[in-house]
Amino acid sequence: MSWDGEGAARAIAAAKSSGMDFIEIALLDPATTDAALGRKLLEKADLPAVCSLGLPEAVWASKNPDGAVDFLKLAVEKAAGLGATTLTGVTYGGIGERSGLPPTQSELDNVAYALEKAARHAKAAGLEFGIEPVNRYETHLINTAAQGVAMIERIGSENMFLHLDTYHMNIEEKGAANGILHGRDHLRYIHLSESDRGTPGAGTCDWDEIFAALGAINFKGGLAMESFINMPPEIAYGLSVWRPVAESAEQVIADGLPFLRGKAKQYGLV
Amino acid sequence: MSWDGEGAARAIAAAKSSGMDFIEIALLDPATTDAALGRKLLEKADLPAVCSLGLPEAVWASKNPDGAVDFLKLAVEKAAGLGATTLTGVTYGGIGERSGLPPTQSELDNVAYALEKAARHAKAAGLEFGIEPVNRYETHLINTAAQGVAMIERIGSENMFLHLDTYHMNIEEKGAANGILHGRDHLRYIHLSESDRGTPGAGTCDWDEIFAALGAINFKGGLAMESFINMPPEIAYGLSVWRPVAESAEQVIADGLPFLRGKAKQYGLV
Amino acid sequence: MSWDGEGAARAIAAAKSSGMDFIEIALLDPATTDAALGRKLLEKADLPAVCSLGLPEAVWASKNPDGAVDFLKLAVEKAAGLGATTLTGVTYGGIGERSGLPPTQSELDNVAYALEKAARHAKAAGLEFGIEPVNRYETHLINTAAQGVAMIERIGSENMFLHLDTYHMNIEEKGAANGILHGRDHLRYIHLSESDRGTPGAGTCDWDEIFAALGAINFKGGLAMESFINMPPEIAYGLSVWRPVAESAEQVIADGLPFLRGKAKQYGLV
Amino acid sequence: MSWDGEGAARAIAAAKSSGMDFIEIALLDPATTDAALGRKLLEKADLPAVCSLGLPEAVWASKNPDGAVDFLKLAVEKAAGLGATTLTGVTYGGIGERSGLPPTQSELDNVAYALEKAARHAKAAGLEFGIEPVNRYETHLINTAAQGVAMIERIGSENMFLHLDTYHMNIEEKGAANGILHGRDHLRYIHLSESDRGTPGAGTCDWDEIFAALGAINFKGGLAMESFINMPPEIAYGLSVWRPVAESAEQVIADGLPFLRGKAKQYGLV
Repeated sequence: MSWDGEGAARAIAAAKSSGMDFIEIALLDPATTDAALGRKLLEKADLPAVCSLGLPEAVWASKNPDGAVDFLKLAVEKAAGLGATTLTGVTYGGIGERSGLPPTQSELDNVAYALEKAARHAKAAGLEFGIEPVNRYETHLINTAAQGVAMIERIGSENMFLHLDTYHMNIEEKGAANGILHGRDHLRYIHLSESDRGTPGAGTCDWDEIFAALGAINFKGGLAMESFINMPPEIAYGLSVWRPVAESAEQVIADGLPFLRGKAKQYGLV
Repeated sequence: MSWDGEGAARAIAAAKSSGMDFIEIALLDPATTDAALGRKLLEKADLPAVCSLGLPEAVWASKNPDGAVDFLKLAVEKAAGLGATTLTGVTYGGIGERSGLPPTQSELDNVAYALEKAARHAKAAGLEFGIEPVNRYETHLINTAAQGVAMIERIGSENMFLHLDTYHMNIEEKGAANGILHGRDHLRYIHLSESDRGTPGAGTCDWDEIFAALGAINFKGGLAMESFINMPPEIAYGLSVWRPVAESAEQVIADGLPFLRGKAKQYGLV
Repeated sequence: MSWDGEGAARAIAAAKSSGMDFIEIALLDPATTDAALGRKLLEKADLPAVCSLGLPEAVWASKNPDGAVDFLKLAVEKAAGLGATTLTGVTYGGIGERSGLPPTQSELDNVAYALEKAARHAKAAGLEFGIEPVNRYETHLINTAAQGVAMIERIGSENMFLHLDTYHMNIEEKGAANGILHGRDHLRYIHLSESDRGTPGAGTCDWDEIFAALGAINFKGGLAMESFINMPPEIAYGLSVWRPVAESAEQVIADGLPFLRGKAKQYGLV
Repeated sequence: MSWDGEGAARAIAAAKSSGMDFIEIALLDPATTDAALGRKLLEKADLPAVCSLGLPEAVWASKNPDGAVDFLKLAVEKAAGLGATTLTGVTYGGIGERSGLPPTQSELDNVAYALEKAARHAKAAGLEFGIEPVNRYETHLINTAAQGVAMIERIGSENMFLHLDTYHMNIEEKGAANGILHGRDHLRYIHLSESDRGTPGAGTCDWDEIFAALGAINFKGGLAMESFINMPPEIAYGLSVWRPVAESAEQVIADGLPFLRGKAKQYGLV
């Protein structure tokens, strides 16, 4: 979560040693990200990267769409600078953004305006640009795959895609696979995150159903294991994990990764 | 299960009153089936039909392939006479056929020989022709979707298709959806049968995973609820249901049908 | 959710007509609750009641324990006045209370202080007194059954009990049944609430596992179906349901109640 | 499966090296079992043993109860000779015994007669004596936990117990946990066997539900992983596994054992 020189080196080493095919970098503060250094480390390790983020409150797209565009434009530049091919996440707002009411037309208009412009910047930089529906407590704007699809189809940028996350799907979708079915035409990336954000395989997510649906739609996108053991303060309130949900990051990797690989293999995804 | 005049009329009335879209007729004794009468009743009720069967021991395809062809030829004629568009089931052998050893090359050659000829007869009569993998105790020949696919692709008749059954899949496939994934290119018909052959929704089958996979492969074939409350003696030994697995046929229809319809709707199949 | 004369009469009529054995009354504003009227309506309908609540921000127990005690004392009086035998819910804080940090010792001390005094008032009024762990977004204080048990055992009041909710368990506990196992010695009440707070049976909760565990511990407490279709503004932000999670309250009752009854029967709970 | 000197030594070494707490020995041919040798090897390895069997057709208890008693008496002696504390399995009949009809009163009377006498011999030898319900294809006599309990309670011998098997439960019981609930008062041993008899964790069994129910009833009996990779010819027809259901015995142990241990730990069983 800390992408300075030392944190980046440690994360890259851990990803390589556990046999990961790519790394997802949280680009929470693009302005201070040393893209050139990161790129050097990634290239040396021959490790592809995906960048993800949520917007700071000052530039939530629903309220400050032009501010959001500026922020996302810089994030696009940094992601491209890092050599990533993708920028994704809660690119439409804050992790923890809630007005207390259902999304208004004006909020959704602002979001669409900002995302359309950001997608254009991303395209110019050769990046895919994703949006990730998150659960009702982390945003009131886009909670389900169907809502994400509606936004993507409204905007119509071909480099925009849907990014799902099993943790959020476990709360928001009717069945574990419904989000995958609803989002199938736009789904290019998925966070494999357990129901409590701990070790995949040790919670309530129905992984057989999830992987079966991914296999059945011939999913070819990125499969990213996600867990939250140590949280950056910027997103702790939004994520609201108040206790250790696994013994350690090492245990998540040691137990979760083989579990997910086994299921991916069983359902023909790898 | 008794397809004489009275049994047929009763079954058709029950199917219509519970809102079924088609009926599956067990063609266990083609020679004595009054196809003309059946057709009249089906047309009057405007109820499409699918015919299914297993082979009597004297004409098991693995041992008596020409006998099997003759039996299947007559079954094709009767199915066409009934106005059915499909003949399917354990068309390659007996329900309960087991040599005590894995299938031999010679047995599989005989099966392929008989099925190829039967498929040709079916095609001439305008019928689709299916094979249904069943569990290890009901046959030693074809237990999994993958084995069914191998046989279909070996024969190469375009009117042949794979017919799966969730009850057998629950025993033979790795995950509830694996058979659907393996069989997807040839799957046109599925028996929705609970793990104990009782009321769908009240057993161990993972229906969310099954329907999610069917939805995800855009399954357009027949969805047939199956339960075994009263068994014809010809297949009782093969099926081996020794106790009532549901209160009554009425209860299976009253509880099982809405359950299956609800899940089919949830996953976009109806 | 609106417990004035008209709302109460409508809720009681709905509960009776759908065959519920008791009703849970949200006692969100005890001061304005007309207990005598409510009692009259409940007695006329011969319908037992359970009262539940969350604390308003001004009297969150973690910060204002004496204010919490005063509020809970009044709630106890009103619950007793209504003829209820139980007061439960997020009796230790606000629905949506989050400091942004793990619970501090001081916060937990304040909660224990307030709950101990409130439990004493409840006991004097002949009431059982429950605490309900809720998910990480609705409180940072008590998220799991194990945390609830720790608080109950610290206080040691015999009329205190653990109140679980399958919706929260789906997010916080390792497996669907783990909370039930951890809480078994103190569990006397459970909210049967689907993963999206919609119709039970149409989400990701593993109901077979939940009911099996309840059956296996010989659970004799209250089984309360819960869904959130229309929310009182006081708790909308905390609950954060931004879209209809079911077609209507009628549909939740028509589909969800028979589903839950069927599973409760299957696992020997009714 | 081959319990001669070499097979026994190999099995014991494998059990020890994979950290198993005990070994289950298939006592398919008691007459030729060298109990003294086996005991020596087991004692040297400090490995407790459980013996299991099914009856040969000549001494099926339903038809030849006195023959069954003689066979079981010898098996008891050999099990005691091996130093085992338990004799269990399909002690009431053949693996694959099916009359083609539901069990008759006379058959059940014969079974009860033989089991009562065998249990007495077992008690005299200091052994617990179990009966294992198996699926409809492997016997027509006792398929469910409830049927096993009925037989045990009819006989009333205190050293008799119920032995369940998740593979059979997956076919016969309504839910994965229902057999555990029905059998709880007599359950002292369970085979943890996957739905296809392959590697536990890679099939359709709902292990969370199974372990949750075991945890919830405070199960203290034996947890035995079971898989069938190589079958003794005597029981191949009864078991009817016609293809490799796992890559190898080594793979079952390498993947299945940690999976089962993890779930047992999650639900408080170890």
